[in-house]
Amino acid sequence: MKMVGVIGAGTCTQDIYEKARRIGQGIAGLNAILVCGGLGGVMEGACRGAQERGGITVGILPGQDRSEANPYVTIPVVTDMGHARNILIVRSSDVLIAVSGGYGTLSEISIALKLAKPVVGLDTWDQMRGIQYVETADDAMKAVEAFLTQR
Amino acid sequence: MKMVGVIGAGTCTQDIYEKARRIGQGIAGLNAILVCGGLGGVMEGACRGAQERGGITVGILPGQDRSEANPYVTIPVVTDMGHARNILIVRSSDVLIAVSGGYGTLSEISIALKLAKPVVGLDTWDQMRGIQYVETADDAMKAVEAFLTQR
Amino acid sequence: MKMVGVIGAGTCTQDIYEKARRIGQGIAGLNAILVCGGLGGVMEGACRGAQERGGITVGILPGQDRSEANPYVTIPVVTDMGHARNILIVRSSDVLIAVSGGYGTLSEISIALKLAKPVVGLDTWDQMRGIQYVETADDAMKAVEAFLTQR
Amino acid sequence: MKMVGVIGAGTCTQDIYEKARRIGQGIAGLNAILVCGGLGGVMEGACRGAQERGGITVGILPGQDRSEANPYVTIPVVTDMGHARNILIVRSSDVLIAVSGGYGTLSEISIALKLAKPVVGLDTWDQMRGIQYVETADDAMKAVEAFLTQR
Repeated sequence: MKMVGVIGAGTCTQDIYEKARRIGQGIAGLNAILVCGGLGGVMEGACRGAQERGGITVGILPGQDRSEANPYVTIPVVTDMGHARNILIVRSSDVLIAVSGGYGTLSEISIALKLAKPVVGLDTWDQMRGIQYVETADDAMKAVEAFLTQR
Repeated sequence: MKMVGVIGAGTCTQDIYEKARRIGQGIAGLNAILVCGGLGGVMEGACRGAQERGGITVGILPGQDRSEANPYVTIPVVTDMGHARNILIVRSSDVLIAVSGGYGTLSEISIALKLAKPVVGLDTWDQMRGIQYVETADDAMKAVEAFLTQR
Repeated sequence: MKMVGVIGAGTCTQDIYEKARRIGQGIAGLNAILVCGGLGGVMEGACRGAQERGGITVGILPGQDRSEANPYVTIPVVTDMGHARNILIVRSSDVLIAVSGGYGTLSEISIALKLAKPVVGLDTWDQMRGIQYVETADDAMKAVEAFLTQR
Repeated sequence: MKMVGVIGAGTCTQDIYEKARRIGQGIAGLNAILVCGGLGGVMEGACRGAQERGGITVGILPGQDRSEANPYVTIPVVTDMGHARNILIVRSSDVLIAVSGGYGTLSEISIALKLAKPVVGLDTWDQMRGIQYVETADDAMKAVEAFLTQR
């Protein structure tokens, strides 16, 4: 089964949340599993969208128990390793979609590019060689589908 | 959703494998998610049993990619952190079942007891206070069910 | 340079503390670096003894900053990964000395034996094949010295 | 004692190596402990410089044993957790100096800025808000000294 990572800010605008939600719906539509950090904002929007379409969502959590997971995480993985859990999200994904995001997201993008994983970017850190930038959630899903198909 | 961890040796006898398989079937029968280290032996037997009953299996892998996962892992989580991934298996589980096992399993039992997680033991490290010992796979499942119900 | 790990309870009796301190003195006397979890009890006793003899002490800490280190840690390594940091203590040591200890210490002993590292045991988990048991701190140091020499 | 992190590429030009070496000398001159990833390139240059001035160098290694450490690492910490060890370097440092570097270094810069640690940058990822950029190794050390003094 394919695994698609969604990385982005833990708090976000409603607009970004809806984009993440649409991406989550798209991931479920591809019959792929969504992997993320399991918290709020972009992560929650994406999990919510995936769950709305019957998809499975994996939340790789930084803290000590699953209570911090957003309500749309199907499978909480509790790491108790803080930001080091970012690497697990990247390693577990076939392809990643970055939606907005701050320094935590940038650390995930960096590791993804270091590991030569494809990264699709929407409203996120700009001008990074290696990211395939898109303008809409639908275009993000087309790029993801292309990556998954060619693998 | 409930998460049940299965810990045990990466290579095992056919007898132990079948016990693990039966436990996996039981976990799926409880509609719980099976969490394990994702490799062979007891982990494979349990994943196989769970998958036979339509259950979801999470394999928290020690290495750098998912190719090491046994064929019955639904959701591979790639950690690249070796034995340190043992702690994630424990933290992610509501209750753990130890089936046979060597020092790696003992490290998982230790962390589980340290974190006051319930541990059911079948043909494993003996005379450890804190483990609820059982004689059969069916008894293991009864003990697990009791723990999940009382939570 | 040789690295000697000291593992044991975070709180302990004065008697155990003094044994750990004597072991710390012995490690510094061997010109080895002491590695431990950096907290109180056995860890503090050992660091204190080592520092009294001019030795270097490394504390591999579970939390988010170095404030939790005991006052005798020369080099605090901040992991923010909780019990998973136990594996780093084991991997970084040429030989380990277990002094008393509970389940956390048992997890460290397990990983050490899994990795075939020599373990010297003093007033700790008994009857474990693979541990070389001793009766006094001085005997512990003799055993450690023998292991370091033969490597 | 103060801990200064040095992050940068594992392979580098001679020019960058010499800058890292000078920075290592400066860190030892401040009586601070140098923390790095323990491998080659910038990490080796910095460790070499520090050791030339009698400083202590900590190498937080990604692999399974200390054989991968550069010859100027005084204290090898063996993590077996790959890129996730980057977070430990950042957490263990009071201030970080980034010298050149690729995506691995960018992941460390990101986590440092996320954790609000001061970062001094020399010939590294440019135009990042939060990095204090300098032109020479000597200016890097002045910036580091200022950060250490004001804390």
